[in-house]
Amino acid sequence: FLIPAMAQTNVTVSGLVDAEVNSQTSASTGQHTTSINGLSPGPNGGMQSSYLQFAGNEDLGGGMKASFTLGTFFRPGMGSDGRFDGDPLFSRDANVSLSGDFGGVTLGRQISPLYLSTLLFNPFADSFSYSPIIQHTYYAFSAGNVISADSGYSNAISYSTPNFSGLSAKLLYSLSGESGVAGSFSGNLLYFNGPFAATVAYENSTVSGTSNNTYTLGGGYPAGTTQKIAQLGASYDFAPVKLFFQYQNTDTTQTGLASLTLDTFQLGTSIAMGQGNVLASYAKTGGAIDHKTFSVGYDYNLSKSTDIYMAYMNDQATAYAYTLSSVGIGIRKRF
Amino acid sequence: FLIPAMAQTNVTVSGLVDAEVNSQTSASTGQHTTSINGLSPGPNGGMQSSYLQFAGNEDLGGGMKASFTLGTFFRPGMGSDGRFDGDPLFSRDANVSLSGDFGGVTLGRQISPLYLSTLLFNPFADSFSYSPIIQHTYYAFSAGNVISADSGYSNAISYSTPNFSGLSAKLLYSLSGESGVAGSFSGNLLYFNGPFAATVAYENSTVSGTSNNTYTLGGGYPAGTTQKIAQLGASYDFAPVKLFFQYQNTDTTQTGLASLTLDTFQLGTSIAMGQGNVLASYAKTGGAIDHKTFSVGYDYNLSKSTDIYMAYMNDQATAYAYTLSSVGIGIRKRF
Amino acid sequence: FLIPAMAQTNVTVSGLVDAEVNSQTSASTGQHTTSINGLSPGPNGGMQSSYLQFAGNEDLGGGMKASFTLGTFFRPGMGSDGRFDGDPLFSRDANVSLSGDFGGVTLGRQISPLYLSTLLFNPFADSFSYSPIIQHTYYAFSAGNVISADSGYSNAISYSTPNFSGLSAKLLYSLSGESGVAGSFSGNLLYFNGPFAATVAYENSTVSGTSNNTYTLGGGYPAGTTQKIAQLGASYDFAPVKLFFQYQNTDTTQTGLASLTLDTFQLGTSIAMGQGNVLASYAKTGGAIDHKTFSVGYDYNLSKSTDIYMAYMNDQATAYAYTLSSVGIGIRKRF
Repeated sequence: FLIPAMAQTNVTVSGLVDAEVNSQTSASTGQHTTSINGLSPGPNGGMQSSYLQFAGNEDLGGGMKASFTLGTFFRPGMGSDGRFDGDPLFSRDANVSLSGDFGGVTLGRQISPLYLSTLLFNPFADSFSYSPIIQHTYYAFSAGNVISADSGYSNAISYSTPNFSGLSAKLLYSLSGESGVAGSFSGNLLYFNGPFAATVAYENSTVSGTSNNTYTLGGGYPAGTTQKIAQLGASYDFAPVKLFFQYQNTDTTQTGLASLTLDTFQLGTSIAMGQGNVLASYAKTGGAIDHKTFSVGYDYNLSKSTDIYMAYMNDQATAYAYTLSSVGIGIRKRF
Repeated sequence: FLIPAMAQTNVTVSGLVDAEVNSQTSASTGQHTTSINGLSPGPNGGMQSSYLQFAGNEDLGGGMKASFTLGTFFRPGMGSDGRFDGDPLFSRDANVSLSGDFGGVTLGRQISPLYLSTLLFNPFADSFSYSPIIQHTYYAFSAGNVISADSGYSNAISYSTPNFSGLSAKLLYSLSGESGVAGSFSGNLLYFNGPFAATVAYENSTVSGTSNNTYTLGGGYPAGTTQKIAQLGASYDFAPVKLFFQYQNTDTTQTGLASLTLDTFQLGTSIAMGQGNVLASYAKTGGAIDHKTFSVGYDYNLSKSTDIYMAYMNDQATAYAYTLSSVGIGIRKRF
Repeated sequence: FLIPAMAQTNVTVSGLVDAEVNSQTSASTGQHTTSINGLSPGPNGGMQSSYLQFAGNEDLGGGMKASFTLGTFFRPGMGSDGRFDGDPLFSRDANVSLSGDFGGVTLGRQISPLYLSTLLFNPFADSFSYSPIIQHTYYAFSAGNVISADSGYSNAISYSTPNFSGLSAKLLYSLSGESGVAGSFSGNLLYFNGPFAATVAYENSTVSGTSNNTYTLGGGYPAGTTQKIAQLGASYDFAPVKLFFQYQNTDTTQTGLASLTLDTFQLGTSIAMGQGNVLASYAKTGGAIDHKTFSVGYDYNLSKSTDIYMAYMNDQATAYAYTLSSVGIGIRKRF
């Protein structure tokens, strides 16, 4: 039954290094620090989190395909792996897929569909240094372990539909790995049609007592907390001006407490100017908290895979003693 | 004396991702958990432990060759590196070799010859989720640190003979790295001749106080414990039915205690059916303990490098409060 | 503004595996241990520290180039990553560069210019097992955390000049990442002209309370300690005899204490003999301490990318209870 490991699958090594000289003002102490890419637990990572990826595809015939992805985040400032200390080596991706006319099934650690929708409909994409919606949704000013809110899911199975004239959906279930504890669900609908694009996403997750590698908006929640997140997003490219809109409703229920409901809006724009883009975004979360963030930046393309940028983010919340700010100038090299 | 690092050695990136939806019943609590690939310290890893490997060969002329291998295990369920938390990054392989007509010499961390014999003569090979002989020999229900029993040796030097008409031998010595402490020895003979194959392996190791990354059958032994393991294995392929047999004698001596002798048998079969194989194996350990395990599975080849499988293992031991079981369905993608 | 990640940058996987059978005598206990590559905190790593590197270059046109380097050290003895436990995954390199007629700018973790000068002007280069000058400058018999003395700098920005008829300079500034704490500076001048080469290097660093991954000559210094290091180096290749010379002055100031000044000399030679080189080096540090080290070795090239070697180092210091020695025979495979 032994089958030799043959070189039938071409392995692609890809990724990106994004390093910036960044100056921050801490929301808790008001102190300024300068570093490469910012310092955890402040905004960090530059325009995009650096990663190294190994991936491959195999044509199985009959329209079927097998593929795998292994992705490791790293921080160029210290040379550390992960998005933060303790992050698993392949926290970005560690999965295998089978796909065909029926769509695709993926097993293993993989990106959250809600997170994918979040990054696609704001001009700063998945920047943990500069995207206001990321700051409101995925960034823990005080770190916590809420599995509902990590950008990737462990122990996950997902199904992706085929693309129907621009419309596609992805449904993910993350097994809790704990006896008697419910798993988490995340799903989205994506629609792309010429200059217009839109999404609906929903996530329902339970904070696990053992799983980790997660951050959340409001800090750590105890195990058993459930979180329901609904998100709408849309963009329209009026070239050279592209507009982005997002609305998100988050409902968090801790055992024995009344549920906490938050509403978040994001408006953004990306304006093509020469070889670059001016970027701006504003996000506001209201309800039980008051949180306002805006960012501006300019991203200049030296080539299709290399760009340099300048950006500034101002982040205010009633829970902060000081206004958090982050400003930087950096280089992003895709490979 | 400086020599430029030239690109004369082609580096091959290879490995495999094996992810399964797995449901387990714990031997200690009787509780059921469902996850990707099982959860440590239960059976985990699917049909084969996932890994990523960097390797290369250089022809030195005159029949001589230089080669290296770097292999990192990882767990697709969480995206973590290693077989377990704390496993070194390159625990699978981190070595350099010189080979020629005389055979080959390898320096660095490398596979145990006993372990190689163990995986070659049972139908579930090196599956830590489903191979009964692996469960009896290399799996720690209660984890311990017995260097005799890890599947790879640190601080190792090995010599491999050339192949004499199907017969070859490998001898490995692992330096203890401690003053006054003996190292460990592992060696095997392998014979392949048409449908018939056989092995004899022997390992004599001393539990070190500082080395780690090891598991053992009966839990942790104190430093100074010595272990002698003798193994016989044979297989015959009556196509489409292949039969496997293994016998193993383990003798463990702790300081101040009488030695503990265990006898283990394994019988297995792999039956080719269409594009797949039905797999079955039974292992029994007697002597100071009573441990019985059987596994059945079906492995279907989508291609030479991709397969899907279903498998079930039932594991009973007098030391367990409950019957341990593991059942799963998964995808294995070699690259 | 989204730009697809295109395969315009060829990624090169390179590195080296260096494994030796090494026998050491501990400077603190006088005990002998044998292992692969030595054991921390003694001399370890063989003729050169093993590493795996991912790097790439992109031609941006107009003489401009973008490049990145990710390098991970590893220890073949245990299969562990890093130079020591706790070292970041990409402690060798994690950076991105833009270069052109103006020179080059690099952001991220990168090699110290002082360290580059140190390894270029001694016959054992960057061997942490056998280079006397490395033993005097970068090796901590008692480990400490002095950012001034690590071989690489975190949070760094550097500028490299173009090459002017063999003359070039590199200036590096490492941001402290701490409010109110000065960063560190390291720079060098390098000159290569036929058989002659020379360097001047200077480093001025402050021990940070939070940064780490560093070793220092005299053990750990408290945060706030400043260190000024000036180094001269020269070599001349009289073929087949090449001579090396280094002089270094180190000035360390702890808060509230008188400054400690040390002078270090190194003399070395590399003599080409057939396909190999005889190597010898002697270093002496005087001033507040008395430290003398000599090493001899023979390095035989099997090819341009593979060599085998034997080496011996004898290391005496008034602070040691015993004479430290290290002897080994090993294989180095570049790829």
